[in-house]
Amino acid sequence: MSAETIAPFLRNAWYVAAWPEEIGGEPLARTIMNQPIVLFRDAGGRAAALEDRCCHRGAPLTHGSVVAEGIQCGYHGLVYDRAGRCVRIPGQERIAGEARVRSYPVVERQQFVWIWMGDPAATDEDAILDFPYHDQPDRWPHRRAMFRIAANYMMMMDNLMDLSHLGYLHARTIGGSGLAHSTAEMTVERRPTGVLLTREMHGMPPPPTFVKAVGFEGPIDRRQEFEYVAPSAVLQWASAVDTGKDLKDESDPGGFRNRLFHGATPETESSFHYFWSAAIGYRTDEPQAVDEFFQEVHATFLEDKAIMEAQQARIALEPDRELVAIRADNAVVAARRHLRRLLDEEGAVQSIAAE
Amino acid sequence: MSAETIAPFLRNAWYVAAWPEEIGGEPLARTIMNQPIVLFRDAGGRAAALEDRCCHRGAPLTHGSVVAEGIQCGYHGLVYDRAGRCVRIPGQERIAGEARVRSYPVVERQQFVWIWMGDPAATDEDAILDFPYHDQPDRWPHRRAMFRIAANYMMMMDNLMDLSHLGYLHARTIGGSGLAHSTAEMTVERRPTGVLLTREMHGMPPPPTFVKAVGFEGPIDRRQEFEYVAPSAVLQWASAVDTGKDLKDESDPGGFRNRLFHGATPETESSFHYFWSAAIGYRTDEPQAVDEFFQEVHATFLEDKAIMEAQQARIALEPDRELVAIRADNAVVAARRHLRRLLDEEGAVQSIAAE
Amino acid sequence: MSAETIAPFLRNAWYVAAWPEEIGGEPLARTIMNQPIVLFRDAGGRAAALEDRCCHRGAPLTHGSVVAEGIQCGYHGLVYDRAGRCVRIPGQERIAGEARVRSYPVVERQQFVWIWMGDPAATDEDAILDFPYHDQPDRWPHRRAMFRIAANYMMMMDNLMDLSHLGYLHARTIGGSGLAHSTAEMTVERRPTGVLLTREMHGMPPPPTFVKAVGFEGPIDRRQEFEYVAPSAVLQWASAVDTGKDLKDESDPGGFRNRLFHGATPETESSFHYFWSAAIGYRTDEPQAVDEFFQEVHATFLEDKAIMEAQQARIALEPDRELVAIRADNAVVAARRHLRRLLDEEGAVQSIAAE
Repeated sequence: MSAETIAPFLRNAWYVAAWPEEIGGEPLARTIMNQPIVLFRDAGGRAAALEDRCCHRGAPLTHGSVVAEGIQCGYHGLVYDRAGRCVRIPGQERIAGEARVRSYPVVERQQFVWIWMGDPAATDEDAILDFPYHDQPDRWPHRRAMFRIAANYMMMMDNLMDLSHLGYLHARTIGGSGLAHSTAEMTVERRPTGVLLTREMHGMPPPPTFVKAVGFEGPIDRRQEFEYVAPSAVLQWASAVDTGKDLKDESDPGGFRNRLFHGATPETESSFHYFWSAAIGYRTDEPQAVDEFFQEVHATFLEDKAIMEAQQARIALEPDRELVAIRADNAVVAARRHLRRLLDEEGAVQSIAAE
Repeated sequence: MSAETIAPFLRNAWYVAAWPEEIGGEPLARTIMNQPIVLFRDAGGRAAALEDRCCHRGAPLTHGSVVAEGIQCGYHGLVYDRAGRCVRIPGQERIAGEARVRSYPVVERQQFVWIWMGDPAATDEDAILDFPYHDQPDRWPHRRAMFRIAANYMMMMDNLMDLSHLGYLHARTIGGSGLAHSTAEMTVERRPTGVLLTREMHGMPPPPTFVKAVGFEGPIDRRQEFEYVAPSAVLQWASAVDTGKDLKDESDPGGFRNRLFHGATPETESSFHYFWSAAIGYRTDEPQAVDEFFQEVHATFLEDKAIMEAQQARIALEPDRELVAIRADNAVVAARRHLRRLLDEEGAVQSIAAE
Repeated sequence: MSAETIAPFLRNAWYVAAWPEEIGGEPLARTIMNQPIVLFRDAGGRAAALEDRCCHRGAPLTHGSVVAEGIQCGYHGLVYDRAGRCVRIPGQERIAGEARVRSYPVVERQQFVWIWMGDPAATDEDAILDFPYHDQPDRWPHRRAMFRIAANYMMMMDNLMDLSHLGYLHARTIGGSGLAHSTAEMTVERRPTGVLLTREMHGMPPPPTFVKAVGFEGPIDRRQEFEYVAPSAVLQWASAVDTGKDLKDESDPGGFRNRLFHGATPETESSFHYFWSAAIGYRTDEPQAVDEFFQEVHATFLEDKAIMEAQQARIALEPDRELVAIRADNAVVAARRHLRRLLDEEGAVQSIAAE
């Protein structure tokens, strides 16, 4: 595994800035890549993102309020529109062009608010990943949450792309036996947008979460796909059936199926916002089914948060020290290489631009 | 507005070290310009200020106790007089001349304890500002307080010399309409000791605090003087009367009048002690009148504290980034220039001394 | 007193890592000399110390669990033996030699768990100090404790080797009159392993702790020995009898006698683990006697903790500023010199090794 455990930021990319319901009548403060940002909705309901620092005295705009023209600073009343232009200064007519704050492109789609932290000229909405399940509440009821985690964002990607941790860290919830996980059939496939990890396990005892969900009584077969979409998302697909049944037959009423989204948006080099959602494909007409699954996953992800924060504390003491790779790291190594390539490309572009 | 938002310290000047009642039988710890200081009263009741660090092992003298000869360290019993000389070392007769701590000139006057943090040879008591109202309890009953604020001390000066914030930050208390404030008649006048800002507003609705104070029923005229006295005080004079009456007639029993003192004593580059007092010139025989006014102002100044601390946090991320001046900043700019001149003079003197 | 108040670490030496009862079925986390360490007992009950950082992803081993072969990481299940070798990686057969963590020599003896933080080749068990009283519960019943103190570890050595602080800092407990302490007969003797300070006081009023312990009614004679054993222990021997009796006659049933151990194990340059035990040599068949003495001493040592942490805060502001020595510092100066010599020797050895 590369020593570059504290991964730098890829700027020309989309990151989850917020869940849509987080942005309402009050300004929302969120730091992304060390930049304090204010998120709000304009009069038309469209989400907007500005740097959270009035150009006049540096006061945070999140201490202000949302008004018809945009957002008003709570200190001396300056108003900015969604593009960051100052459109009102109390007590004066003329507004200098320098009176503005940085704005960031924002796209709201499929129940995500995406933000672009890089060169505005390079913005490409087609590059936003597709996750249609949020918009299919009848077929895939879901719930979502956000945790702030005090670790470098790539530690979450490492976590998700090396599932041998399930048997140890999550033994009491979604994990099941450590041995089963470490002997799973595993394939790692490079994709244009990242890396796909597929695992299959056959004839294993069902973990407690699965039993609660669909009442397995005997051994199960299990299939998981974890797709790393660079720089900071993992799309998770899981299926489990009574041993011998067809893992890919999504019409089997006794099967366990879910779709999870994981997004890690860097706050600083050593912290990130972890956006995750959990959709289920069974008992879709029982609201408590998705709640039950959400609670299980929630507890599990708090275990991840605890270990990652402890890991970050150790890494930070000796950030350049090499780590030792194990067999289970294949997908992690591929994902890290993919990101490295993107970072190198971005660096090359920036070098040319700087000449 | 200058980019020098985090103002350096002017050392050859008087600062408020404490309110007199803060210094009693127990040593008082206070850090001024990064220097931990112990304040106490000697046997004659005179306030004294020493560095808060015993010369023997570095223990803070504030962990000790006030004794007849001065202050005694609580660790091994060394005693210092008000000049910082060690006058007793338990178990030995001879005391070396090096056994001493720094002392700071202190003057107690008009209910202030002033301290001089610069060259002791340059101490000039005549340079202490005059604020006679503290000593006139019948004519100007007052109350005083101190807040620690996590911001550079000059942000308080900026705050007070740009009153366009009243209509936004303090809309619910002393502020009133933002529009009225930003269209006030304003004059800015340079003084030998600083800058005088005068504002008049006519025919405006009375803000809630004023109505509570003297029961205005209709529109009022309002006059304010804010005098910046370098480096870190603002003397405030305010008057309000029914529209058409004489703003300067202090005998009008229906008028609203006050005198406020604001002093910002640097603790560090990014924090200060905010000493303020509020005196009223109406209902002077009703003790609850000054209490009511104090409570209103107290709530208002906590609003200032919150915005300044938020502002400091943003400025600290990019301290050298230019801020954008607006029309309402005239007095702020003049005050900052005045301080800059004093800092340059002090720097020049120090350069000559160093040659 | 030397300006080197923040003492560096002597690595080739034994330090107390833990009390034996702290290391049980769960891994114990303890940072020593900035190195996070996990302490545990192997299947044979022997204490072991490894760096608290899995070589795979850097997760702390203290989040894992003790297993038959050693300790298992709680993230992906790697197992290490007491020598730090990785002996199991789930899902793979071959284990590379680089899969290991640092281990530290540990010796458990006389109710101490000692650790060696230096060159393993230089380990010398004969150099461990002798403190037989812990193993003599009938003759010397004792109790022990540990405080974390936010100060450089040598401040505790200074504290113990300059007892003139007893009359000031501990006036209400074990101290007694400040004058008596500062006029005590004092001898300072260099030893191969450190410095021995001896003090005798005659005809002094008994301090409250002593009266509680053995019921003194009149004046007492008192003798103390404080032996600094480099780098970071002090062995304390104290005796008090009715004035005129023999201080060294340990069979006198009316005498007050104790043996204290003090060990300061550096956590960082500005914090240490303070291990201390208190044994009494009177009323040895009354369990409450040792409890009473322990409580008195506990309160006293919290006074030391408070002043040392305050002292550290001041020293840290100006670490290179000279301190002023007083007569009572003789033993402190000798102890500091002894440590300086050892540090110089260690530095010389390291320089040769580096050539």
